[in-house]
Amino acid sequence: MKFIGAKDSGKVVIFGVPYDGTTCFRPGARFAPDGVRFFSENLETYSPALNRDLSSVEFTDAGNLEVSALPEKMVEEVEDFVNRIEIPVMIGGEHSVTYPVVRSLKKSYNNLTIVHFDAHADLRDEYSGTKFSHACVVRRILELGCRIVQVGVRSGTREEFKLIKEHPLIEKVDIKDLPQRLMEEQFVYFTVDIDYFDPAFAPGTGTPEPCGGSPVEFFEILYNLPPVKVVGFDVVEVSPPYDPSGVTRMLAAKIIREMILKFWGGEPC
Amino acid sequence: MKFIGAKDSGKVVIFGVPYDGTTCFRPGARFAPDGVRFFSENLETYSPALNRDLSSVEFTDAGNLEVSALPEKMVEEVEDFVNRIEIPVMIGGEHSVTYPVVRSLKKSYNNLTIVHFDAHADLRDEYSGTKFSHACVVRRILELGCRIVQVGVRSGTREEFKLIKEHPLIEKVDIKDLPQRLMEEQFVYFTVDIDYFDPAFAPGTGTPEPCGGSPVEFFEILYNLPPVKVVGFDVVEVSPPYDPSGVTRMLAAKIIREMILKFWGGEPC
Amino acid sequence: MKFIGAKDSGKVVIFGVPYDGTTCFRPGARFAPDGVRFFSENLETYSPALNRDLSSVEFTDAGNLEVSALPEKMVEEVEDFVNRIEIPVMIGGEHSVTYPVVRSLKKSYNNLTIVHFDAHADLRDEYSGTKFSHACVVRRILELGCRIVQVGVRSGTREEFKLIKEHPLIEKVDIKDLPQRLMEEQFVYFTVDIDYFDPAFAPGTGTPEPCGGSPVEFFEILYNLPPVKVVGFDVVEVSPPYDPSGVTRMLAAKIIREMILKFWGGEPC
Amino acid sequence: MKFIGAKDSGKVVIFGVPYDGTTCFRPGARFAPDGVRFFSENLETYSPALNRDLSSVEFTDAGNLEVSALPEKMVEEVEDFVNRIEIPVMIGGEHSVTYPVVRSLKKSYNNLTIVHFDAHADLRDEYSGTKFSHACVVRRILELGCRIVQVGVRSGTREEFKLIKEHPLIEKVDIKDLPQRLMEEQFVYFTVDIDYFDPAFAPGTGTPEPCGGSPVEFFEILYNLPPVKVVGFDVVEVSPPYDPSGVTRMLAAKIIREMILKFWGGEPC
Amino acid sequence: MKFIGAKDSGKVVIFGVPYDGTTCFRPGARFAPDGVRFFSENLETYSPALNRDLSSVEFTDAGNLEVSALPEKMVEEVEDFVNRIEIPVMIGGEHSVTYPVVRSLKKSYNNLTIVHFDAHADLRDEYSGTKFSHACVVRRILELGCRIVQVGVRSGTREEFKLIKEHPLIEKVDIKDLPQRLMEEQFVYFTVDIDYFDPAFAPGTGTPEPCGGSPVEFFEILYNLPPVKVVGFDVVEVSPPYDPSGVTRMLAAKIIREMILKFWGGEPC
Amino acid sequence: MKFIGAKDSGKVVIFGVPYDGTTCFRPGARFAPDGVRFFSENLETYSPALNRDLSSVEFTDAGNLEVSALPEKMVEEVEDFVNRIEIPVMIGGEHSVTYPVVRSLKKSYNNLTIVHFDAHADLRDEYSGTKFSHACVVRRILELGCRIVQVGVRSGTREEFKLIKEHPLIEKVDIKDLPQRLMEEQFVYFTVDIDYFDPAFAPGTGTPEPCGGSPVEFFEILYNLPPVKVVGFDVVEVSPPYDPSGVTRMLAAKIIREMILKFWGGEPC
Repeated sequence: MKFIGAKDSGKVVIFGVPYDGTTCFRPGARFAPDGVRFFSENLETYSPALNRDLSSVEFTDAGNLEVSALPEKMVEEVEDFVNRIEIPVMIGGEHSVTYPVVRSLKKSYNNLTIVHFDAHADLRDEYSGTKFSHACVVRRILELGCRIVQVGVRSGTREEFKLIKEHPLIEKVDIKDLPQRLMEEQFVYFTVDIDYFDPAFAPGTGTPEPCGGSPVEFFEILYNLPPVKVVGFDVVEVSPPYDPSGVTRMLAAKIIREMILKFWGGEPC
Repeated sequence: MKFIGAKDSGKVVIFGVPYDGTTCFRPGARFAPDGVRFFSENLETYSPALNRDLSSVEFTDAGNLEVSALPEKMVEEVEDFVNRIEIPVMIGGEHSVTYPVVRSLKKSYNNLTIVHFDAHADLRDEYSGTKFSHACVVRRILELGCRIVQVGVRSGTREEFKLIKEHPLIEKVDIKDLPQRLMEEQFVYFTVDIDYFDPAFAPGTGTPEPCGGSPVEFFEILYNLPPVKVVGFDVVEVSPPYDPSGVTRMLAAKIIREMILKFWGGEPC
Repeated sequence: MKFIGAKDSGKVVIFGVPYDGTTCFRPGARFAPDGVRFFSENLETYSPALNRDLSSVEFTDAGNLEVSALPEKMVEEVEDFVNRIEIPVMIGGEHSVTYPVVRSLKKSYNNLTIVHFDAHADLRDEYSGTKFSHACVVRRILELGCRIVQVGVRSGTREEFKLIKEHPLIEKVDIKDLPQRLMEEQFVYFTVDIDYFDPAFAPGTGTPEPCGGSPVEFFEILYNLPPVKVVGFDVVEVSPPYDPSGVTRMLAAKIIREMILKFWGGEPC
Repeated sequence: MKFIGAKDSGKVVIFGVPYDGTTCFRPGARFAPDGVRFFSENLETYSPALNRDLSSVEFTDAGNLEVSALPEKMVEEVEDFVNRIEIPVMIGGEHSVTYPVVRSLKKSYNNLTIVHFDAHADLRDEYSGTKFSHACVVRRILELGCRIVQVGVRSGTREEFKLIKEHPLIEKVDIKDLPQRLMEEQFVYFTVDIDYFDPAFAPGTGTPEPCGGSPVEFFEILYNLPPVKVVGFDVVEVSPPYDPSGVTRMLAAKIIREMILKFWGGEPC
Repeated sequence: MKFIGAKDSGKVVIFGVPYDGTTCFRPGARFAPDGVRFFSENLETYSPALNRDLSSVEFTDAGNLEVSALPEKMVEEVEDFVNRIEIPVMIGGEHSVTYPVVRSLKKSYNNLTIVHFDAHADLRDEYSGTKFSHACVVRRILELGCRIVQVGVRSGTREEFKLIKEHPLIEKVDIKDLPQRLMEEQFVYFTVDIDYFDPAFAPGTGTPEPCGGSPVEFFEILYNLPPVKVVGFDVVEVSPPYDPSGVTRMLAAKIIREMILKFWGGEPC
Repeated sequence: MKFIGAKDSGKVVIFGVPYDGTTCFRPGARFAPDGVRFFSENLETYSPALNRDLSSVEFTDAGNLEVSALPEKMVEEVEDFVNRIEIPVMIGGEHSVTYPVVRSLKKSYNNLTIVHFDAHADLRDEYSGTKFSHACVVRRILELGCRIVQVGVRSGTREEFKLIKEHPLIEKVDIKDLPQRLMEEQFVYFTVDIDYFDPAFAPGTGTPEPCGGSPVEFFEILYNLPPVKVVGFDVVEVSPPYDPSGVTRMLAAKIIREMILKFWGGEPC
């Protein structure tokens, strides 16, 4: 099974990381890569909003990475893989899988900004006995020296919210201000935790948090982003066992299609 | 089991067509007629918005049609049935069941306009080896010479969207403009594919497509439609196996109640 | 299992009433108290919106009441319990459990106003052979002489809507007008039937009714309530068997956290 | 929806009692009557084991009784109904619905023996505040003066097992001995709690208890019963919400078909 | 996704036919091929009972056939495919997919015996308006002139059972007698409808029928079959939507592994 | 929530380890401890087979251990806990949680025999990048110098089955021979992987393997064990997300009740 429209080769490389080993509440994100691909097959390759078609984009689907149960090893395995490809488009897995992707990209793009869609701050220093927990992923990325632009964060500890206010590299913006905010950025990576969205739109996730964003608004903003250089993106925390109707997987598939078409889709037909 | 408020007779005739034989992704719409009736029993017969009550409307529930597995035969069987009734209110089944209803009505109402609520264009010429696939239903209806007013279509191939733009009989309107658009129509049939709605409101459908309409907006527009002559309507593509909480069936039941009360409900109490 | 942040003692007392004995359609609300507590453990204790934390509030979780199958006995058992505590925060159970709480409070607070969030009027005189049905709960409360402020009611019989219009003690208000409306009230009790919300946000309930409110709006109004004296609240009709993704239980848990913090949470940190 | 093969009239009368108001653990038996009928439609009317066909039996399906939420009232309503029919074949509902059927039959058949298939003794005097709980049903029947033959009971309190040993009217027999045991009985009523069967064969029930009987053995014994006069039977405690694959409903439907054909099926074809 | 142990080439060819277009009750068998492969990945390649390992067998997995919605076309498409391979191992799909495989094989092996494991006779002449329904598949095969050995059939119409008794080419045998019965056969094809098994062991099927066989017995007989020449086999009617725990898919995967190892597995290690 | 019948203190200590961090296929065993306790509440405390009652046994329920996501840390945390109690009765979690229990017990009981009920050999040296995987647990225990008696193992690699044959400390016995085999043992620990049972009886497990044992046989053997000194036991690999009807959790609860009553239940009443 490959993502709809995937070619035999291309510099944009979709891959799955079926990992949820540090999930503290409800595991299941490991089933997301295949689940999202299955639903992608019932999306059209054509986007009416962008008037572009996946059939004219060079991207490939490298399948899933077999990773270890231990987060430290998983991090190395994912980084090794990303070192060898050009533009990563990752389907998680829980959010901990984003760290190795960013660590790899940071070596090529020193001036890297992470746009972080999420309900949760993910800024803890350690959690469940490991520094590589999904709950620590943005803290680790911060330590790499990336700028973080957070969108939709509405849950965290008092300490995490204090850090957001005080740390010079993090900033919380309203989604409406995102296009303006990205005007001057050099290299951008998007990490979309599906629980950014309201649980009404994305029930299939481990830790749903009420009061999130809507897909209509998300796509409108996406279509209006300035022409920054996007070096990759991921969609994480989709959990098929909690997605009985498939609407979350379908949303993830559409996000991937629209982001590929927006960032690397070439001219409208 | 009958739809709530149904009488022993009446010119408005509810019937179910438990058919999903050409469904290409996830079958299940065959269970919709009984599923919607079951939920209708927990709706009130009274509509506070319209201040009307089903108890004062003459409509009946004819049960389900037993149809063949082959789409060509199903089309004939449904058309035969509709030929014998006055005002059809059909609960699908997948969308292919709409074609025979319209073909039957077209014989009585030459100047017929179809209002088509849907996420998908359904304008393919052939699909899965048949011209009577759910994915071809609007194309077939177009060939009958009906005018098509599409609302909510947000998925299709490039060719389908080209056809929408170019064909003189089809037109895509924003739901807000629907009342104005219908001002001058003579005879109107409504076909409501439940995936018109955002999957948040109608997860129980075979092929959910993000970014759809909301029930609040739908009913507001419905209440404000001009007094056109409505010759029937259907609600299709509800799929109980993907509706674990029942909210999609309940929405379908409410659509049916409100449409019956709006179109044939007589004076407010 | 206790609600997150609960202490060993405190005048605010959370308790569950796992009762759904008069439910006419789909039982399951009996599983809500434990279900909501389970999800509360994956909420943070900190509310970024209120900048308050449950760790600084004195409230306790008394567990679940073991109640009889007969509604008359259940009513007595719940009232007996509430007589012995100071500020009740109840997790239902179906809506019938609200009556004994209010009956107990009415003895202490003569001038008591009930804010009733619900899709259904719940104003029948008798239902399924009992006066203590969930469908009669507001009628019974009315008989106690409480003022009722209804928010979100969109389903009922013609008679119920007539009663709302005509009875001097009931009033239906738009949620936007609630802060203004409560300005002058002396003692207020909130009863939140989770089906107040649109089924998109709260699918896990016995009788979902389309076209409800959104959590974003609910919390905004909550945050802006005037400083009335709140003597307790409940969240009822959450039904875990119809909540496969858990989003309804998570919403209920967040409502409880935010209401406790808003009403009894002291100073922001 | 009617049970497969049901006629417009007949002295054998199938009816459903969708009642689970005293269920202490997991409600859902209220959905059994319609659930069993739905599966019956995918059974053949012909029994190869008995070489008989439902098409040659005069039996009818009277639909479901609408009963009150209160067990005392439900008991009266069911008894009233059974008083007016000849041979009751009831689909429960929880086990409490058996008491009114037996109370009605006892008036006609003084010398009545109840064959009770069940995992649980159901011999408590009171439970959840009522004497009409499902957990008390055999105790109530015992008080009517019926003889009880229990098969498969493997769960209960020490007191219940003591009662079984000591009470002159109850007796626990191995299923293999049932044909012999019934040789001399005059009038027999069968009550089959579906949890008699091992949960492997009947998972869809409120309180599954490991180590039950198998359908193969059950039907073999049934086919070999002596020609006693059977005055009715019931199948209770099927719970569709816990029967995701439908195997429990299908088993119940087959039990009903085979029992009707065995007891009142006339000559083999 | 490929079946565990599959090689890049080999004369034994696994393929899936995701077709359930004539299913009259509960569709879903279309999801079986991928579902069985997914579970096969959690089987070992080694069979302790046979002391053989898939790693030493030359077999390949050709993926799924994309077939039309119309049964007539599907039959041609499957036959075309089977004409081009040597030894077919098919994962259905509903049972109608077996006919084209046998029709293709019959051209090479004139003296062909079909061993038919099933709960249902599948001997109707026409069903749901088509002669290629799953309910007619054995009737069609019979018309090809194959000998049919039925095992486990326990449901059908009186006419079907009469046909079994009277037709010279069909025979119903007890599974215990199968090894003896196959002693003299020249070419054998096995078709295993998963509903042969008791629903306890294989709940995930469209039309479960109580009182079926057990896997332990099935495998014991399989291991003891005489060395007949097996020209292919299939496993059909596995329905993932009704298999929430996956036990049916796992059973199907094990049947495929054990049959491949038994028939074409070479010498024990 | 505590296990039914648990006291405030006692030397027999039930505890849960909600850990499934190395699960390679389908996680979910983390939800077992609370799931099994929930079902235990609907078991009676009395065992008719043993004529003993939990009310007369001194055992306590210590709740769940909060463990790290990393297997190495989890192993230390569990061992630390077991060091401090007398007789451990553990509810897993995946099978990896057994190793630390045995490691702790081995310090007190040098001559320790492990009776290992399981479908899988669990004898790999390393898996998914860790030596503490569930798939390695018996290998690790072997290295501690314990004798292993395996019952029900029917899946593994060729190497694992070779090890079973050749290693002097492991032995595979038929369950019927277990009482005889344990005659001479000094100290015995039982570890029951629920997938020992046939998936028909225990579908709710991560990796079901066909052809397992039955509960009836298991309990018969248990009741007939010789009076060896049992130093603890565990039940692992119950996975509630794959146990929609609850039958697996109920079986686990009954195993725990019967084992406690058999080993430490004192005199029959």
